Amino acid sequence: MIYNCLNNLKSTNPIIHNITNYVTVNDCANMILASGASPIMSDEYDEIEDIVSISNGLNINIGTLNKETIKSMILAGITANKLDKPVLLDPVGTGASKLRTNTSYSLLKEIKFSVIKGNISEIKTLMIGSSTTLGVDATIEDKITNENLQETIKLLKDFSKKINSIIVVTGEIDLVVDENKAYVIRNGHKMMSKITGSGCMLGALITAFISANKSNMLDATACAVICSGICGEIAHNRLNDNEGNITFRNYFIDAMFNMDTTTLEKGAKYEIY
Amino acid sequence: MIYNCLNNLKSTNPIIHNITNYVTVNDCANMILASGASPIMSDEYDEIEDIVSISNGLNINIGTLNKETIKSMILAGITANKLDKPVLLDPVGTGASKLRTNTSYSLLKEIKFSVIKGNISEIKTLMIGSSTTLGVDATIEDKITNENLQETIKLLKDFSKKINSIIVVTGEIDLVVDENKAYVIRNGHKMMSKITGSGCMLGALITAFISANKSNMLDATACAVICSGICGEIAHNRLNDNEGNITFRNYFIDAMFNMDTTTLEKGAKYEIY
Amino acid sequence: MIYNCLNNLKSTNPIIHNITNYVTVNDCANMILASGASPIMSDEYDEIEDIVSISNGLNINIGTLNKETIKSMILAGITANKLDKPVLLDPVGTGASKLRTNTSYSLLKEIKFSVIKGNISEIKTLMIGSSTTLGVDATIEDKITNENLQETIKLLKDFSKKINSIIVVTGEIDLVVDENKAYVIRNGHKMMSKITGSGCMLGALITAFISANKSNMLDATACAVICSGICGEIAHNRLNDNEGNITFRNYFIDAMFNMDTTTLEKGAKYEIY
Repeated sequence: MIYNCLNNLKSTNPIIHNITNYVTVNDCANMILASGASPIMSDEYDEIEDIVSISNGLNINIGTLNKETIKSMILAGITANKLDKPVLLDPVGTGASKLRTNTSYSLLKEIKFSVIKGNISEIKTLMIGSSTTLGVDATIEDKITNENLQETIKLLKDFSKKINSIIVVTGEIDLVVDENKAYVIRNGHKMMSKITGSGCMLGALITAFISANKSNMLDATACAVICSGICGEIAHNRLNDNEGNITFRNYFIDAMFNMDTTTLEKGAKYEIY
Repeated sequence: MIYNCLNNLKSTNPIIHNITNYVTVNDCANMILASGASPIMSDEYDEIEDIVSISNGLNINIGTLNKETIKSMILAGITANKLDKPVLLDPVGTGASKLRTNTSYSLLKEIKFSVIKGNISEIKTLMIGSSTTLGVDATIEDKITNENLQETIKLLKDFSKKINSIIVVTGEIDLVVDENKAYVIRNGHKMMSKITGSGCMLGALITAFISANKSNMLDATACAVICSGICGEIAHNRLNDNEGNITFRNYFIDAMFNMDTTTLEKGAKYEIY
Repeated sequence: MIYNCLNNLKSTNPIIHNITNYVTVNDCANMILASGASPIMSDEYDEIEDIVSISNGLNINIGTLNKETIKSMILAGITANKLDKPVLLDPVGTGASKLRTNTSYSLLKEIKFSVIKGNISEIKTLMIGSSTTLGVDATIEDKITNENLQETIKLLKDFSKKINSIIVVTGEIDLVVDENKAYVIRNGHKMMSKITGSGCMLGALITAFISANKSNMLDATACAVICSGICGEIAHNRLNDNEGNITFRNYFIDAMFNMDTTTLEKGAKYEIY
């Protein structure tokens, strides 16, 4: 049962190393703590190998990319691969600049990622090398719908096989796919797009889940995505009329802090293909 | 009517590029989202031109200046000028260090700013090249009062004409001035000075407003300042006895999320000179 | 009476210069404001001397260390020493990487710190040059208990004398020690370890307290630690069932905003050795 992945996380308390952007880093740290894991943030090349070696998983997020940090990301990923520690890539804004696109390609070339998580535009850029990214949100013309679902899943399974990574595509429908199996997840709320960092927090959360469930990373990833979606629903339900996006953000992280398998089982909405 | 500027913003959903400080960047991103716009943060020189080109406006804030980022700020500003996209300068702490003062002078020399927003000390440093800035708060000896209001407005209109930018001076009384017209705005609450980022969030918010109202930037700027002030009043009114500055910050951003023209019309306190 | 240190802080409104990490910097700024002081963040070498000279105290936190910032830290510390301004060191993660450990040693060599604050693992690394740090939390095998309390205090008094700094060791029991006197503080709540930044905020808070109480830094430091602990207790008491760590963080900072000597006197739990 995939919900056990949550209990494994809470009992294991993995240390998650994050090389991430300075916009949402505080939210990511608190989300990791809410999940039962411990965050450590470090992007200085000279200490990367030490930090990877005391961590249980690595989250690479290119949200505020700079040239110095790219070197740290590559060294961290290679070190984590050597030490057999799960690595996640959140290719934020890939397609929005040549630097981000090329950096994502370099990272994919040098590092074996356990999971790659992005919106459809970012993942498409990785897949076919061209896409239009308006800022960091998904492009409208490439939305996943019930109509194009099966075709999308097939393409993602192929891509997953090709690069040997679990692929997560976020949106109104979330997909978690490896070469054999796809979770189609229908949790979440549109308010999640009105806060900064819901995507970054999901990347951090998935890294925590897979680091505590190394032998079962597909289920762990799906479980993290379901958790995040349910947190969005709980947060929205708690909102009063005079409350807005910051309060939603607070309720969202609080909901993860209080997440348990009962809530997960009752709230999860997904199919498997 | 200046209140239409809010509806224009909510219906346009502009993308706002921010080169800003790492202290309040998360608040700025959430404030931009609360206003109906979308934030993108990027300060890496090698992607600046790409990011400016997909954005609708640029917010330059020197709150945690470093030498590398100055080059990115200048390239971003020049690129935005070429592409006719609004640019705002928030010269945080100008006067507090020679580096900040000189950087502000360089930015003014290289870039044509649509709006420059600062406290009286920062604006004075820009105007007369000397002032005393105690940290990032306004100097007490240069407070705008009803007594010195007309004289201050005259000086600011001259300065606005000279550098061809709208000037915003924040304080107990806020001024929004171009060479012909001045808004004297009396909204706001002193609790806004007990959180970090109320000034930075205002800079981000003005950038969102002018990016959605390019043909009417003076009114758009005034509307943003009024919105921010009313948010401060709403946030203060919601505060309970055991709540403090962080809850005020949350209420402040929430208030912008729920802002509408009715609230604006009812709450706005301003005169025009 | 040590509680006067709080009133001194609120009436003095010192400016606190922070060279700190990008994870918890916003929380630190708001905590400093909540205490009655004003924050300024700057890590650019070229303005360090200017910023130190307009500040009343300096907080150095190595939470997201990078090579450029180390130079700024050293220049800031030396400048603050020259100008007789209090300096605090928060050696976050010392022991977790050679870079952090060696940087801490360099800082101790170049700068005279008024206060050094860390968990037992970090302080031990500074004391004996070897320890095991799992991430940024205290190692379990080195917990301070009532059994090893007297021995620990003795060692810390010796260390304090040797390096001429007040030493703060945080944990379930907090210790504030100089060569002659030790405060053993039993305030706080374990929820403080479920948010990011409770340690960083304490470092910022102590810097505010000592900057406003230069002639009485030991008491000021103890007062800051007691305040932080009581804030943790107040925050925990306010938590409802569906609230979690982010709400706890908000309540925590709010509690400092509302702290007064009555609350301090009633809540303080400490002994002196």
